[in-house]
Amino acid sequence: MKKTELNELRKDPLLGRWVAVLNRSLGPADYTVSSPEDHEKNCILCQGRETEVPGEIASVRGRDDRSGRWLTRVIPNFSPVFQIEGELGRRGEGMYDKMNAVGANEIIIESPDHSLPPEEIGLDQMTKVIMTYRDRIADLEKDHRLRYTLIYKNSGKDAGATFSHPISHLTSTPVIPKRVKEELDGAKQYFAYKERCLFCDIMKEELRFGSRVIIETRHFLAFCPYASKFPFEAWILPKRHSCAFQEILAEELEDMALILSTVLKKLKLLFRGVAFNYFIHTAPNRMPRKDHWHTLGEDFHWHLEIMPRFLKTTGFEWGSGFYILPTSPEDASKYLREV
Amino acid sequence: MKKTELNELRKDPLLGRWVAVLNRSLGPADYTVSSPEDHEKNCILCQGRETEVPGEIASVRGRDDRSGRWLTRVIPNFSPVFQIEGELGRRGEGMYDKMNAVGANEIIIESPDHSLPPEEIGLDQMTKVIMTYRDRIADLEKDHRLRYTLIYKNSGKDAGATFSHPISHLTSTPVIPKRVKEELDGAKQYFAYKERCLFCDIMKEELRFGSRVIIETRHFLAFCPYASKFPFEAWILPKRHSCAFQEILAEELEDMALILSTVLKKLKLLFRGVAFNYFIHTAPNRMPRKDHWHTLGEDFHWHLEIMPRFLKTTGFEWGSGFYILPTSPEDASKYLREV
Repeated sequence: MKKTELNELRKDPLLGRWVAVLNRSLGPADYTVSSPEDHEKNCILCQGRETEVPGEIASVRGRDDRSGRWLTRVIPNFSPVFQIEGELGRRGEGMYDKMNAVGANEIIIESPDHSLPPEEIGLDQMTKVIMTYRDRIADLEKDHRLRYTLIYKNSGKDAGATFSHPISHLTSTPVIPKRVKEELDGAKQYFAYKERCLFCDIMKEELRFGSRVIIETRHFLAFCPYASKFPFEAWILPKRHSCAFQEILAEELEDMALILSTVLKKLKLLFRGVAFNYFIHTAPNRMPRKDHWHTLGEDFHWHLEIMPRFLKTTGFEWGSGFYILPTSPEDASKYLREV
Repeated sequence: MKKTELNELRKDPLLGRWVAVLNRSLGPADYTVSSPEDHEKNCILCQGRETEVPGEIASVRGRDDRSGRWLTRVIPNFSPVFQIEGELGRRGEGMYDKMNAVGANEIIIESPDHSLPPEEIGLDQMTKVIMTYRDRIADLEKDHRLRYTLIYKNSGKDAGATFSHPISHLTSTPVIPKRVKEELDGAKQYFAYKERCLFCDIMKEELRFGSRVIIETRHFLAFCPYASKFPFEAWILPKRHSCAFQEILAEELEDMALILSTVLKKLKLLFRGVAFNYFIHTAPNRMPRKDHWHTLGEDFHWHLEIMPRFLKTTGFEWGSGFYILPTSPEDASKYLREV
């Protein structure tokens, strides 16, 4: 066989995971994207059908709007896996361990309009969505049985979406999910060694080199991580060190709406109809963030991860936790920057 | 809302991950399975087209067969991510770490016949496939740059298959993959506390209860794990404690072929055309298995994991590492046992 240049393995500084970055980088046209879904006419999540769905948990409404029209709206999940009422009941079963699925499953309706996702209505609407995320996390944090609230979005069938109305999901669990625990541990290890926040260091490094930056706003940075799991993966980090998303400042809200809208629009411009997930990683509930005797909170930094879903995972990824990147993060961020 | 019985959260004793098991268990008919793929007529991996593919790395041929006909055959991957020649070149890049993608990427052709996977030709052929797995791992173990060899199979497009000819894949990496490292760490922690092998304990427990057992043979046990990630997930473990798959005994080979064939056939009977992955988890290379000063090797136990791919992963799984099981392992194993 012809000897070719070796591909590169890169280590994720947060999770210790390795990824392979291919030399022969694929461009946006090389990816197959499922065609956008049909928008069903008869959507139960649309404005005007409020009485047909489970009771409202929360909503954001216009300040002067007496029409009762909502801008964002939170309802219970139609088939909840976790239920808010009940005891944890931690117990053994033979050699195994189990407990009850106490928690919360909510649907965050991002827009009254079926065919207009918040990033297309304008900054105001996206800001309302982010406020809704914040308020729900802050509210559920008060429940001492719950250890973590994950906000996530499934857009497109390949990303697991079941509604075509623009929605996000919320799941509160009585345990810290494994993936979050791994991030907390990775960031803690780095802090123990360097006495600096890993995420703050990553941002400084990315701003210094610039080659993986997608967009920088006043308060946020969006970039393609050095050891992305999937091509065109993008992370959004607040520049101000903060471990808890729900402590986002008023002046940061609109700026976050701006950067999130921009990255989503760029992805859609490059890949019409691409399926994607995003989720927020923040500090768990009951983490003593203000305790000056501990470094807790100093070593974690909340962020949002956007994962386009072009590629099918195979036995390789599931068996190894190793990922292969057919487009380098440098190339991906260049496409996203320039579109 | 009507108060319903709480779902159950179960902890994976190996990885510490939690899964939710739904009370309202789905049956096989509730899962959507993609229709089986068309078998292309013109397959380069079939018997007779050997000169059109990269050179043979290894093969198994009939003892008395002078016709040159092979039974299994190993060739290099057509577009290798890892290459066998070159230096590791571990180095930094700013704050990040990288190295060269030195390793091996091989295709294991499981059968000369395009339309007959080994589990349908008979035990002999499946035994040859398992011998091929063993020989390749043992061969690559000699290369001291390589830390791990993963054998895996992608069957069906939803599982990432790119050929319809029955094949498995082999990838050798210069690092221990994260998922394997997590298993080693989990098993080590258990051993440190209990002074027993976690996998041996799991087998004893499963045999004692029986409710998650699919099939037991002389040397192997197949069962649905207590905290499966996916519905109808099945694990195959050797009853004899052994950390390294390549040390499988001659008398165990055919028995492993029997249990693997049986479980695959049962899956196919329940779900015609179901996509699945399987992979072998074994001790990494360069682990001093014979060193009596260490417990290395005592605390790990090789096994094969079979993952049917019915469900789309969403932002929930990717963001949390938490899985939701719509069919309990007890129900899944009952369906598999009885089919």
